[in-house]
Parts: sequence; C-alpha cells; structure tokens
Amino acid sequence: MDLEQLRLLLEQVASGETGPDEAVAALRDLPFADIDVAKVDHHRALRCGFPEVIFCQGKSPDQVRRVARELLENGDVLLATRADAAQYQAVARIADDARYVEDARVVVVDRRDDPPAEGRVLVASGGTADIPVAEEAAVCAEVMGNDVVRLWDVGVAGVHRLLAHQEELRNARVIIAVAGMEGALASVVAGMADAPVIAVPTSIGYGASFGGLAALLAMLNSCAGGVTVVNIDNGFGAAYAAAVICKKIYSDEQG
Amino acid sequence: MDLEQLRLLLEQVASGETGPDEAVAALRDLPFADIDVAKVDHHRALRCGFPEVIFCQGKSPDQVRRVARELLENGDVLLATRADAAQYQAVARIADDARYVEDARVVVVDRRDDPPAEGRVLVASGGTADIPVAEEAAVCAEVMGNDVVRLWDVGVAGVHRLLAHQEELRNARVIIAVAGMEGALASVVAGMADAPVIAVPTSIGYGASFGGLAALLAMLNSCAGGVTVVNIDNGFGAAYAAAVICKKIYSDEQG
Amino acid sequence: MDLEQLRLLLEQVASGETGPDEAVAALRDLPFADIDVAKVDHHRALRCGFPEVIFCQGKSPDQVRRVARELLENGDVLLATRADAAQYQAVARIADDARYVEDARVVVVDRRDDPPAEGRVLVASGGTADIPVAEEAAVCAEVMGNDVVRLWDVGVAGVHRLLAHQEELRNARVIIAVAGMEGALASVVAGMADAPVIAVPTSIGYGASFGGLAALLAMLNSCAGGVTVVNIDNGFGAAYAAAVICKKIYSDEQG
Amino acid sequence: MDLEQLRLLLEQVASGETGPDEAVAALRDLPFADIDVAKVDHHRALRCGFPEVIFCQGKSPDQVRRVARELLENGDVLLATRADAAQYQAVARIADDARYVEDARVVVVDRRDDPPAEGRVLVASGGTADIPVAEEAAVCAEVMGNDVVRLWDVGVAGVHRLLAHQEELRNARVIIAVAGMEGALASVVAGMADAPVIAVPTSIGYGASFGGLAALLAMLNSCAGGVTVVNIDNGFGAAYAAAVICKKIYSDEQG
Amino acid sequence: MDLEQLRLLLEQVASGETGPDEAVAALRDLPFADIDVAKVDHHRALRCGFPEVIFCQGKSPDQVRRVARELLENGDVLLATRADAAQYQAVARIADDARYVEDARVVVVDRRDDPPAEGRVLVASGGTADIPVAEEAAVCAEVMGNDVVRLWDVGVAGVHRLLAHQEELRNARVIIAVAGMEGALASVVAGMADAPVIAVPTSIGYGASFGGLAALLAMLNSCAGGVTVVNIDNGFGAAYAAAVICKKIYSDEQG
Amino acid sequence: MDLEQLRLLLEQVASGETGPDEAVAALRDLPFADIDVAKVDHHRALRCGFPEVIFCQGKSPDQVRRVARELLENGDVLLATRADAAQYQAVARIADDARYVEDARVVVVDRRDDPPAEGRVLVASGGTADIPVAEEAAVCAEVMGNDVVRLWDVGVAGVHRLLAHQEELRNARVIIAVAGMEGALASVVAGMADAPVIAVPTSIGYGASFGGLAALLAMLNSCAGGVTVVNIDNGFGAAYAAAVICKKIYSDEQG
Amino acid sequence: MDLEQLRLLLEQVASGETGPDEAVAALRDLPFADIDVAKVDHHRALRCGFPEVIFCQGKSPDQVRRVARELLENGDVLLATRADAAQYQAVARIADDARYVEDARVVVVDRRDDPPAEGRVLVASGGTADIPVAEEAAVCAEVMGNDVVRLWDVGVAGVHRLLAHQEELRNARVIIAVAGMEGALASVVAGMADAPVIAVPTSIGYGASFGGLAALLAMLNSCAGGVTVVNIDNGFGAAYAAAVICKKIYSDEQG
Amino acid sequence: MDLEQLRLLLEQVASGETGPDEAVAALRDLPFADIDVAKVDHHRALRCGFPEVIFCQGKSPDQVRRVARELLENGDVLLATRADAAQYQAVARIADDARYVEDARVVVVDRRDDPPAEGRVLVASGGTADIPVAEEAAVCAEVMGNDVVRLWDVGVAGVHRLLAHQEELRNARVIIAVAGMEGALASVVAGMADAPVIAVPTSIGYGASFGGLAALLAMLNSCAGGVTVVNIDNGFGAAYAAAVICKKIYSDEQG
Repeated sequence: MDLEQLRLLLEQVASGETGPDEAVAALRDLPFADIDVAKVDHHRALRCGFPEVIFCQGKSPDQVRRVARELLENGDVLLATRADAAQYQAVARIADDARYVEDARVVVVDRRDDPPAEGRVLVASGGTADIPVAEEAAVCAEVMGNDVVRLWDVGVAGVHRLLAHQEELRNARVIIAVAGMEGALASVVAGMADAPVIAVPTSIGYGASFGGLAALLAMLNSCAGGVTVVNIDNGFGAAYAAAVICKKIYSDEQG
Repeated sequence: MDLEQLRLLLEQVASGETGPDEAVAALRDLPFADIDVAKVDHHRALRCGFPEVIFCQGKSPDQVRRVARELLENGDVLLATRADAAQYQAVARIADDARYVEDARVVVVDRRDDPPAEGRVLVASGGTADIPVAEEAAVCAEVMGNDVVRLWDVGVAGVHRLLAHQEELRNARVIIAVAGMEGALASVVAGMADAPVIAVPTSIGYGASFGGLAALLAMLNSCAGGVTVVNIDNGFGAAYAAAVICKKIYSDEQG
Repeated sequence: MDLEQLRLLLEQVASGETGPDEAVAALRDLPFADIDVAKVDHHRALRCGFPEVIFCQGKSPDQVRRVARELLENGDVLLATRADAAQYQAVARIADDARYVEDARVVVVDRRDDPPAEGRVLVASGGTADIPVAEEAAVCAEVMGNDVVRLWDVGVAGVHRLLAHQEELRNARVIIAVAGMEGALASVVAGMADAPVIAVPTSIGYGASFGGLAALLAMLNSCAGGVTVVNIDNGFGAAYAAAVICKKIYSDEQG
Repeated sequence: MDLEQLRLLLEQVASGETGPDEAVAALRDLPFADIDVAKVDHHRALRCGFPEVIFCQGKSPDQVRRVARELLENGDVLLATRADAAQYQAVARIADDARYVEDARVVVVDRRDDPPAEGRVLVASGGTADIPVAEEAAVCAEVMGNDVVRLWDVGVAGVHRLLAHQEELRNARVIIAVAGMEGALASVVAGMADAPVIAVPTSIGYGASFGGLAALLAMLNSCAGGVTVVNIDNGFGAAYAAAVICKKIYSDEQG
Repeated sequence: MDLEQLRLLLEQVASGETGPDEAVAALRDLPFADIDVAKVDHHRALRCGFPEVIFCQGKSPDQVRRVARELLENGDVLLATRADAAQYQAVARIADDARYVEDARVVVVDRRDDPPAEGRVLVASGGTADIPVAEEAAVCAEVMGNDVVRLWDVGVAGVHRLLAHQEELRNARVIIAVAGMEGALASVVAGMADAPVIAVPTSIGYGASFGGLAALLAMLNSCAGGVTVVNIDNGFGAAYAAAVICKKIYSDEQG
Repeated sequence: MDLEQLRLLLEQVASGETGPDEAVAALRDLPFADIDVAKVDHHRALRCGFPEVIFCQGKSPDQVRRVARELLENGDVLLATRADAAQYQAVARIADDARYVEDARVVVVDRRDDPPAEGRVLVASGGTADIPVAEEAAVCAEVMGNDVVRLWDVGVAGVHRLLAHQEELRNARVIIAVAGMEGALASVVAGMADAPVIAVPTSIGYGASFGGLAALLAMLNSCAGGVTVVNIDNGFGAAYAAAVICKKIYSDEQG
Repeated sequence: MDLEQLRLLLEQVASGETGPDEAVAALRDLPFADIDVAKVDHHRALRCGFPEVIFCQGKSPDQVRRVARELLENGDVLLATRADAAQYQAVARIADDARYVEDARVVVVDRRDDPPAEGRVLVASGGTADIPVAEEAAVCAEVMGNDVVRLWDVGVAGVHRLLAHQEELRNARVIIAVAGMEGALASVVAGMADAPVIAVPTSIGYGASFGGLAALLAMLNSCAGGVTVVNIDNGFGAAYAAAVICKKIYSDEQG
Repeated sequence: MDLEQLRLLLEQVASGETGPDEAVAALRDLPFADIDVAKVDHHRALRCGFPEVIFCQGKSPDQVRRVARELLENGDVLLATRADAAQYQAVARIADDARYVEDARVVVVDRRDDPPAEGRVLVASGGTADIPVAEEAAVCAEVMGNDVVRLWDVGVAGVHRLLAHQEELRNARVIIAVAGMEGALASVVAGMADAPVIAVPTSIGYGASFGGLAALLAMLNSCAGGVTVVNIDNGFGAAYAAAVICKKIYSDEQG
C-alpha cells in the first residue's frame, strides 16, 4: 500500500464507502513498511543516484545476464562487481557498450549523457598486487558519480612517493587507502590530509598476513585520526561509503 | 626552518650575502618537513577547529594536569579522554570550569563564546552497557563542533524503537552506531538512512563476544552499504572521523 | 498511537471531523511500530508469562534497586541475574522476600500464588565448577514457569552416572546441558534422549580451554542431532530459550 | 539380548532350567546396552518419525547407492544431504522417483502416502547466497514431517521486508534463521516472534567473515532472547533440531 | 543394585518368590551401570592405587577441609592440587601431617607405610618459571606411586645441560617435559631417549606466547616421535597419564 | 670417532705413540656426538624394533622408490605413510609384496618371519569419516610390532556401542582414540578403561570444526585422566607413541 | 627537482634572474622528496649493492619478462623470487644465462665479473620439507653478495647433527634458521653460536601447525637471546636482512 | 670435567696409572658438554661482554637480591629487567649505586671504568605509551656496550617528524623500532635507512590491538626489506639482538 492507496482508503472512509472498523483492520495488517519504510533503500539509491549493483560471485553467467537486462531496461547505468570473463561475456551479449575492467573484475555500462560528479575521491594503493582491489574501488566510485584520482604504488616503505603527492591528498574530499601486508598506508595518508580516510585492507601478503588479517588489524589500530575501515578486499564497499559521504556533501551544498 | 627563514635565506642569496652552494647545502640538509610538511597535523587541527586531545590512559594525574595547563594557556578548549576521577580532579584544580562526563570518562573545558556547529551527528547505541562508549563519541563530537543527537537503547532486538526515530536518522549528516554483542545495529541503521554510518563495536557482551571481536567482525561484514568501522570501544575515533566528514562538508559549503 | 487511537482517528475521518489529507499526514508520520509492532516484545513477554529480567552486571546497587522497585510495583515476579551480594542487599531492602541464589548469582522475588508450570526442563551439568552456570539456568527456568530437574555432576568421564538417569532424560521436554572443559556432555545426553538439547558451554577449564572456546566449539560440532548452542556461561539464555520452547508447546496444547 | 530374551532367561530360572549363578554370569557380562539402551537412537528415530539420513560427503556414488537401496528396502523415505550430481545419479538409478534439490544438494525419496505434518517451521534467509543452506534446512524439515514456510532474502539491511511478514513469523512453531555476513537476522527475527529461533550461520561473506566465524559469533551474542545456534552451514542440523522440538510439541499434544 | 542384589533377585525367581515378569521390570529399569559399569572409575582408581584428588580451584577452604576429612577417614593418602595457603591451612587443621608444596600449590598427606613405587618418572623443565608446573607433576607422580627424578632448568638454549643427563633420560620409564615459551624441550628430549614423552606446555612467556598457546602448538608439532601432549599448565594431568602408563607396565610385569 | 677409535687413541696414549696434549686436542675438537650421542636415534629405532618410515607427502614417486629400495636392501620391513597411488606404484615396482592400505594411504612391506607382538593396541574411532586416520594408526601400530584391535564407529552419540566393548577396552595396553567433530570419544573411553589413552583429533567436521581445532581443544581439555593428545590427523604419531609405550612395557617385562 | 636543478634555481636567485619570492613559491611547493629523500631506496640499494628483485607471484610470464629485460639493460644482476617454470622460461628467452633454482623457485642472472662477498651467512634448515624456503634464503643471500654455507636437515630431534657443525656455526656472521613444525631450531642454534640468528618459520607441518603459526610463535618466544623473526616462508626477507647486516659490517670495516 | 681434568686423565693414561679401558669408560660417560660445549653460553657472554641479566618477573625481592649479590661479587655490571620497586629496593640494599629506570622497569649497576662502546644503536618509538618498552631496549643496549640514540614519539601519523631525523637514522648501525597500535613505524624507518631494523611490537593500543597482535602481524608483514621482529613488549630481546649484531661488527673490525 503506497501513499496513494492510503489516501484512497481514507477518502473511502470519509465518503462512508468504508467503515472505520474495516479500515482499522486494513491498516493494522498492512505491511507498514509499504507506506514509506519499504522505500527506504530505493529512496537511498535514488537520492544518491547510485546505480543498482550486481554482485556476480556465485551467480551463473545466465543469471547475471538476466538481472543486467532488467536493470538496463529501467536505467542507464549498470555496475557488476566480482565478475569473471564469462559473466562479462554474458552481459556483453545484451549490451555491446559494456566495458570490462579486468583487473578489478568489474563490468560497467554507462549510458548517462551527463554523469554526476559530486566529489573528488582519491584512491591510493600500497603495492602492485593491491591494484585489483584499488581499481574496483576506483571504478565503482566513478560509476557512482565521483571524479577519481588514482595514486598507485605509494607504499610506506618509500614515504617520499607519498610526499610528492601532497597536493592531490589535500584536494580530495574522501580518500580511499588500499593496502595489504602491514596496511600502514592508511595511517601515513591520514597524517598528511584533512579528508576522511576509508581504509581497505587487502588479502595480499604471505605467511602471517593471514588473508588480510594483519592489514585489517593494523588499520583498525591506526594512530592517525579520521580513519575508518571496511572489510578485507572490499573495494566496492569503500567506494560506496565514499560516495555516500560525497553525495551528502553535495546535497548539502545544493540544498 | 619556516617560510620566513626560507625567504630570508633566499634574500641573502639574492643580495649575495650567501652563495648558491652554501644555500644548496643548507636546503639539502634542512629538515624538509619544517617548511610546510611539519605543519600538516597542526594545519589539520586548525582547519578542522579541533581542540588538542589528551589521551589520559597510562598518564599520572600530574602529567595530565601539566598538559592541560599548557593547552588551556594557548587555547580555549580542552578535551581529555579515558580520564579517571583522579585525573579529572587534577584538571579541575587548574580549571574550575572543567566538566567531567563520568560515564564517558571524558573531561571537557569549553571556553569558546561561539562553538562551531558544522554538522549534525547522530549517535545511536544498542544497549545500556554501550552508553559509556556512545557517550564518549557524543561528547567528543560536540566538542569538535557538531550538534549531536543521542539515540540510546535502540538495539535490533526491538527494531520498532529504531523505526520510531526515522526522522532523526534521515536528518543526520553522519551517524555513529555503537553496539556490542552481535553488533547488528550498524546494518539496520544503514538500511534506514542515507548518511555515512561509522560503526563502533564495543567490548560489551560475555562469553564468545571475545572482548568485542564478535561485534567488530559483524560490523565489518555488514550487508548494508555505507558502513565503515573503527576500533573496539573507540568512541573518540568515531567522533573524530565524523567531525572530519562534517568539517569537510562545512568547508566545502562555505568555500 | 494504539489501536484505540487509530480507530478514533478513522471515526473522525468517517464523521468528517478530520480530512483524508490530514489523516494521511498523521498516519504517514506516526511511528508505525506504535500500533502493533512496538508491542512485540511486551507482547512476547506477556504471552510467555516471563517476568522482566534485570541484568545486573555493570549496574550500581542503587540502579538495581530502582529498577527492581518499579518492576515489583507492576508485577509479582522479579528475576535479577549476575547479581553480586551488594546488589542483592539493595533489592532486599525493598523486598524482604527476595531470595539470593548465591552460586548462580541470581536474585528472585516470586509473589505469584500459582506459578505457571508449563514444562519439565532438565538441567544437566558436567562438573562441580559448572554448577553456578547450571544453577543460573535452573533458577531462571523455574521463575519462567517450568518444573526443573537438576542433574549435577554427570560428566562424560563417568558415563554410567548419566545412564542411571535415563528415565529423567526421557521425561524432559527440554534438556539444558551445561559443561566446560571438553563440553562432551551435550552429545552424550542428546544420544540418550529425544528432547531438544540446549548446550551451554562454560568458561571452566584451564589452559587451552581458552575461556570456554573449547567447549563452545565442541558443542557446535556435536555429532548428535538436536543440539543447539548458546553463548559461553549463558545459563540465563539457555533457560529463556527452553522456556520459549515449553511455552510454545504449552500454548499449542491449550489452544 | 532384547526384552524377549531377558524374559526367556528369567522363565528358565523360574523353571529351574537355568541356575541363578549361571543367570548372574549371563546378565553380568551381557552388553547392557542391548536390553534397552542400544535402542536409544533407533527409538529416537522411531518416535520422531525421522527417516534415516545419508551424509554423502566423502562417500563414493556407489557407496551412497548401496546405503540408499538398503534404506529404501526397509522404509519409504530417503534423505541424502551434501550430495553432488553423481551421487544423485547413483540414487536415481535405483529409485526413479528420487528428487534432487540441486541448490541444497539434497536427494529426497518420499513414498509415504500420508507424510506427517507436526509443526510449521519457518525458514528465513538473509541473502541470495544463503539460500543453499536455507534450502537444505527447509527440505530436511519437510522430509522430517513439517510444513515449511520459506522467507528468502529478508536481510536486516532492509528491515521492512521482514516487517511485511510478521504474520508468518508469529504463526511458526519454530523459526530457522539462516544468514552469513554479519548474521544479524537471528536477532531481528527473534525480536519479532515468540517462537524458538534456531540460528544457522553461513560461510557466505568475504574477507573478515572468516568462513562464517563472524556470523557465528554474532548469533551466539544475540541480544534477543530465545536464540540458539548450530554449526556454520549446518542447515540439516537446524532442521533436525527444529523437528525434534515440533515432534515433542506434537507428541505432547497427542498424548 | 550390585551383584549380590542381582543374585538375590535371581534366587527369588528360582524359588518362585518373584515372577519372571516382575524380574524383567526390575532389571529393565535398574540403573545398569550399578551392576558393574558404575564401578569403572572406582575400579580404575583401585587398580592404579591412585588416591582421590581434590582439585581446589574455586572451592572454599571449608569445602576443601570437608572433602579432605572424608577422604582421610577412608584412606591413607590425600592429594590436593591448585591449593592456596588458606586451603592448605584448612587441611592442616584436620591433618597435622599435611605437607604443602608451595611452588606447586599441592597439599599431600601420605600415611602409607609402604608407598608403591612402580616406575621411574623423569620430570624435566625448561626454565625457572616452569618449575611450579613441573613440581606439580613431580609431586603428583610421587604420590601416585612413582620414583621421580627432577631435571630442572634444562632449556634448549643450552643443549649441553641436557646432554649431561643422558643417563637419567635413558633410565626413565616415562618422561614428562615441562616448558613454556617456545616449548622445544619436548622435541629435544624425545630425540635423546626411548621412553614415552608427555609434554606439558606452560603459560610462561610474554607477548606472543598467548598464555601458553605457542608452547602448546610447538609440542603438538614436535618433529620427534613418541611425544604426546596435555593441556597448558596441566602438571597433574601429565603425572596422571605417566602413572597410568607405569601402572600398566607394573601390573603387566606382575601378572 | 666411535668407541673403537677412542680406544685406539687411548691405547696410543698409553703406549706413548700419542702425547697427552695431542690427545686433548683431538678429543676437544671431536664431534662429541659421534662417540655415542649420534647413535641416539638409530639406537632408539634398534631398541624399539621400529622400521624406518617414509613420510611420502611432498616427495616424487621416484624419490619414494629410491628410499624404499635402500631401506629394503638393509631391512625386512618398510612403512610409508601419506602415500598416494602413484607413490605406491613406484614402491610396488621394486617390491611386488608391497601392500597398499588405500584408506590410510599407507604402504607396507613386511618380510619378517616372526613379527614382534609386544602389546595390544586398541584403536577406536568416532565416525566413518575418521577411519582413514584411525586406519593409519592401526596399520602403523601393527607394523611396529603390536596386536591391534579396531573399534570403528563408536561415537559418543551412541554410548551403548562403546559399552558393548568394555572387555576389549580393558584388555588393551594402550588405547588410541580417533575422533573429529567434538572429539568427545577420548574422554568417554578414558572413563571406561585403565590403559593410557592417546587421543587423535581429526580434521573431520564442517563449519566451526576449523580443520580439527574443535576436536583438538576438546581432547586437550578432557575431564578424564590419562588422556594425552597428538597433532590433528596424526595417526602415525599416535601409533608411534603407543608403540614406544608398549615396547617399554615389553622390554621391562623381559629384562 | 634534483640537486642540479636546485643549484640552478639558487644561481638564478643570486644573479637576480629569479626573485626571492618566486623562489620561495617554487621551493615551497616542490616535492621535497625529490631532492634527496626520493633517492633513499635507490641509495640503499646502491650502498648495499643489492640487485633489483622481481617478486613474481601474481605476475604474468610476459610481465616478468619485460621487467627482467629492463633490469638487465641497466644492470648485471637479476633476482626473481616465487617464480614458476613458465616465468623462468619467459626470462630465459631474453637471457640464456638465466639459472632456475627450481626448489627455491628463484631465477638468477649474474653477470658480475667479481661478485662482492661481504660476509658469511649460514643457512640451517630443520627438515627436508623446509629446504625450498631455506634454498630461497641461500640463493638470495648469495646473489646479494654473501658466501653461504648450507646446513640442511639439522632438526632438533637429533641435536647431535647440529653439534657436529659447531665450527661452521661459530664462523658465521649471520645465521638464518629455517624450520617448520615446532620451529625449535632457532633456539638451539642461537644457544650454540654468537652470531645474530634470523629465524624463518615455514608453513611445513600438518594439523595444528596452522600454516606455520606454530613455528612462528615458537620462534618469537625463543628462550635464546639474539633471535629475531621474519614472516612465514619468507626466505627472501631473511636473506635481505642478513645481507643488510653483513653489508653494514663490511662497510664499517672498510670505512 | 674440564680441560685440565681431561689433560690429567690423559697424562695418567700416558703414565700407565690409568688403563685405556678405564679411560674409555670415563670418557664415554662423561658429560661431553662439560669439556667445551657447556661453556657455549658463558663463552658467548664473554665474547660479547654482556653482563648476566636477571629477569625479575615472578621472583621475590629476596631471590632477586641473592642473585644480584652473587653477580656483583663476580662482575662489575648488573642488569635486572621487569623489576618492580620492591625488587629494586632489594638490590639497592646491597648496591647503593644501583640505578632504577622506573619507566623501563630496569635496574642497572655499572661499575666498569671504561664501558665498551661497540656500536651506535638508534631506538625509535611510536607513541608516548611505547616509551617503557623503548626505554627498556635503550637501557639494555647501553649496558651491553652500545651508544644509544633515542628518538621518541616519531609515529607514522606525522611522518615529517621522522624525516627531520634522517641523519640519525643513517648513522645508526642497528635500529630498534618500537611501536604498538598499527606498528607501521618499522616499515617507514626501514624505508629511510640502510641499517638492519629490529621491530618490537608493543601491547599498547585498545580493542582490536589484541595485546599487541596487530602490531606484531604488521611488523612481520612489513613491505620494507631488512626488518626482523622480536616478541611483543620484548625490549630486552631487541637490545640483545642489536648488541649481538654490533658486537659481531666490532669484533670483525678488530680482528
């Protein structure tokens, strides 16, 4: 039951078509959420202008293709993460403008004439092996309407490389710091900038990195202020959080 | 060497007082950071308007008092976290307007005529036992210049209590979700709002909560978008990150 | 807004006192939960006949006393768990019929003339050191309206002690198996009975019991069917779950 | 030695055919279990009406087929879990009415004219990826004689979806809540219903879900009463526990 | 029902005093264990000649004293482990020949004229800090009837100290190797001797010893054959296992 | 330098051929171990009569074959563990009497006319899936000269199955208890027998068994005396330890 | 901006071509690191004479080949670690003097006429299975300019094998101790030598070695002084640290 | 038996006083270690010039005093670590020149006229709370004969503070990097210097630092070469390892 239906019901009560008792029953049992709550997440998507996202892991190429078609019929943007080549092929068959960012395992279809550009997100990554996760974050942030600056290979064992990019660090609205191994990048970056830093630990490293646990714990224990953390290898999650922040800034600026 | 000293040196080069070689040597060995980099964190503090913070744990009351005096001589705000009663007493002796938020173990001195109010931060907490951490987050966010709305005791076992506060959730610029035990609050809150959600796991719970590990993992694995996480019981860290976001929004709005 | 108020509003709409638009606004913004959802947990408590429970840990004696007074003014049963002697004394001052089960750290006031007795719950415990948790489970289950049979000290290193009590095991509606160390009791008990078995690992044991982790994992991996597990040392939680099952059986039998 | 044989022996003692000493020796050495204890688990199966179950993991298709044939010669129901396609084919060769629930990796043969239906079990699952485990729970619960209601995709990031199904939640005798990632579903569901909730953590999630550990800990720490937990991905175990509860209710109702 | 009672019953059946049916009922319901099984652990204690042991942790001095009195009235040996000074005092009040091994926190009363001496147990310990656990093992093994050789402070960082004691290592029937930190003692000892080696990890060490976990894992992964492991700090457990082995050897030698 | 060489040297000193100083130098620098210590492990093998063992994991079939040939040229017994089919084939090519115990992944060649039989080892296993590890223990114990009794499928969920085999349990000199999942078998068995119990946790189980950790911790925390533990899945290690114990008993009996 | 450019700028200031203000601006914004800091790691490599290293894991053969070509055009040494056969083939196509150390998965090209030989590094390894990691350490240390002594298969279960090599242990400048399982080698070696010991835990072992965690913890808890630890299986890291130490010794000796 | 005794024996053989057979027996059974091996650790101490160290934890003041007296009677240096005030007082009573470094919990008596000074050790620490561990490292390194440079409070969140000290970093022979929380200091320092870096994780941090585990893992996973790690909070161990390296360098320089 949406607002229109609610209004209709109440008009029927007003007109006597429907008795109060009957209306009480209808309202009591109605899925309350349907009036407004149910729209929360749609609402959120709408306000943020984020496209629907397909998380491909564990889906057959066929399933991915069907969801993709549905989304493209109703929208002009498609973002599919954790996509392998076969899943990309499946999408490409129905959308020949689909782009596959192989490193990041992301499929993008973007048919917007004028993609929104609410904020500048800087994505920094520690080592070459972290790039797939960093690229996932970067592509997703772009599709969600942000200008993205990529700063690859600025690990803390060579701090000067970071120092050379202080300007970019200061211009960012949100910084995403992607690093495996000892995960120190987030702390160093946060010490140099005044933007919020979203840290993404990666599962890169061997031995006692324990699948990213070392970097995760390091980032949670960052001695620098303003650092928050998402799940291991979760480039998409960091991009989403960054986009929410930028969107919030943008809408506040507008409104 | 600060900018003035750099200018002086260069003027001496220009006037011939100092030869280029001598200047190369001076510049080569100068602690580069001192020109500008060294000011990064001061700079950050200045731009964000955050007061210096004393982390009291492991400090003697006397040590706390001395740092506090120094800060108050040079500023009009003081924030001391993880303070016990003795540490508060030590501060109170030199600042009779010091306020002790016992639950949160925070000491505040605020002598600003017109405290900044850049953004609205909503702090939600799951259970009664989480309030000290939540209150630490709330007080710190306030001192850092934000309007704070407190939503205590809105744990997920009674979702309706959260539903009753959807308006507040939607009006927040940043939401801090504080919860121990199963830490599900962050997910539920993020599903209802469009603001960035900073999740603070607490060490509340017994048995297999393992000192907050259960809540921490739950929050990192949140199925809701836009959730980032700070360390267990780190109310201050969440407030700082929230303040950085709000400040960023505010300064973007102004500038 | 409760059902009466909803009905009132709708009658006003029917009578023209309130226009449909006004009613839409009222209904749209009303905390939906308040109609019915908000009563979920009260409702649950009511249907199950469970008294309110005070979790004393981290509360001052004074706080406990105030909550206790409020509960006793509105009800005839009080259950306070994790209570120390001081907290008990605080309750005893306002209720001289308060009983303190020291082992279990539970305070009980029961003024019901005719306490409900929906089901027979058997609480078995492995070793002497597990008794506090087992007793917490037993007392709580009793207060929640169940006949409780205690089977103390029936650890698996002497299986014959369990075999001697097969009759009781078979007569139980729900069995709570409390054990620390290797936590094998749950499996052995579940192999002998046809009632659901709720396993409570305890933190008893030294060295590699890791605060109950050993027993917890053992119980989760039980090779016997029908075993479910609650948190370490959570006697109250097991009692609550047992009471929910018995209540469900009882109400289904009645209705 | 069964009861008949025991009676026979005693009659021989009564008739003088066997002397008391001889009988003492026979009874002393007899495997006591054989009188009655040995039947405990058969007995349990009989009373609960549960079919024998084949756990296929680690068995060859041939082994599965042989066990299946034996079971079907002596019964009219077959349940095989963790079965892959080859194992299903092996069963299908001897039972062309075998049904393969691929998602859940369960093989079912049900030749009962009138399957028992003791209770209504509601199986709720958080995300699409949790469905295989949820479906395992659902199919197993059905074969064990329960009406099953499936509630897929009701994760906590969209609480309204759960709110829309409150009626079903309240009508269930037992609820099985299946969720990976942050595992919060169990708490939210338990807060809305008055039935016992059996929580099944799944290994779904990436990074710091650590193979289901995050969800497992969250569920063990549920702040909602009445929640008990089974092993990670153990849909069958939850179904079995649910069936034991329902059977207990049913038999108590009947007798 | 013991064997005498069983015989009596069967004689009554033989004489017609009791009918077969009545006897079936009596036998069917009798706690089977009581005939013989119930004596298993007593039996074990008897055959091994081990005194009853009081595990003092968590017991009040008064409780310890009462159990001690009961044991001493029926036997001539008392062993109490994990005893603090107050618990020892309580025992001393009823047994002035009680001896307190303070390091090992063990209380011993030994009134046997001729204590058994089945085997030679060598207890080796790595560092000074491991001695309390080693001494617990040594004293317990002695009270359980073994000659004990102590080899303190033979850690692996000075292998020559061990080499100097090869003779003792070779003469032992069972070796108990007690070590914290990296727990390597068990491997080195097992490489030098042909007796079974029971390894006891201790919680000694700091930082990443994680309460004995480091030593425990090291011992479980010993590259030397013949090493088995007991729980962290479980000197008593090692002594008990050693005594069981020696007893077995002894009784086999005798019989 | 062996004993003969040492004697020779000393005779040269006695005869004046070699001066004392020269001899001091020779003795000081000689690898001490070579006199006697170096023979320790050979010695051990000799006294215990254990064949050399090939641990196949990580070796090529060719490597296995070469080691096997060498061993068989110098002995009449061969034991190869963790062997796959290819490795077995490689051995079979040079020893057509090689036997492959597929389940246990063990290759055996036994050409002894009169294999030693020092002790009776009982190997009990919990579930069908534990049999490979149990069989590894059994075969290895046999080859090392023990009579082995196998007790498969006596898990604790059906305690009566164990009760039916009390006689065998009591006749064993050493018991090896192999179990995965909750690993309770060791405790129950130790409560029924008076032989030393060596517990082998297996990696069998799913979800929170964490690769055998659950069983390992349970066994380390056994509430029954006389239980010691080896590494997860280490059937060979348990057999070796059992053989060491039996050998010790046997040699003590003989000598 | 390098030193030349800095000098140029200052000369322009001296000559009046550039005003002081302009120079301040240029210097303020210049990436400071570029003057000197940026050369830190190159500098380090230069002083230590270490070749550039390619970490092959996760790179395509083609990528490895391209980096290799670049390195060989500018230098005369190439070291590639974690290389598989295909990656080696790729290098061999452009450098037919490439050598593949298969065990260690290392590719080496060494065209130096006169490789430096600063120090003697002894690499000791516990078991056969540890050799790949030990060999990686050995080869890398050689390429980095050290004489390397290999001591394979000197595990602690046969301490005499180590004792026989005391001379080599004492002659080493740095010792690398590589061991899996219980990782005790580092302690025993450190007790025999006076050189710094770098311990490398390996992931060798089964069951509760947990991928090298057992050895890692053991090494961190070494009771012997002078032991430091690198990551699990990190033979390269140990070699690098050893080379840094030797280089430091060498350069101090020279200078 | 020391060398003198060995010589005496051989002279007796030469003189015929002792027969070769008798000497063989004496030598065969002599504790080999006593000739030379037994002196290994003394030898080590002598060569390195390290004083004996008392590890005070778990020792009574009286025990500490007795060991201290013994050491001071035979030497002119005393180092006692993990000493509390009472233990210091006990030492002060027998050595009024004892110095107590309270922060570091270290007691030092240094009566050398001319303490050795082999190398320059730089100790860097991340935060104020890490100073006790860093100071322990610094004091111990000094007593072991090194010049020590302290660099306190140079955490990675303000990298410029480190940059300002590049000269000191480059002049060090060994660097000890002490840091808790995210432990990133080691990586950043190693990237700036060419000395070996010994990393000491501290237990400083809250929540998910898990007693130093976060810093430990980070340091083990350092992306910078030349970093090795010691146990959590083990300042003494790092100092010892640093001293071993410096000693090695020094002795190589001399000899």
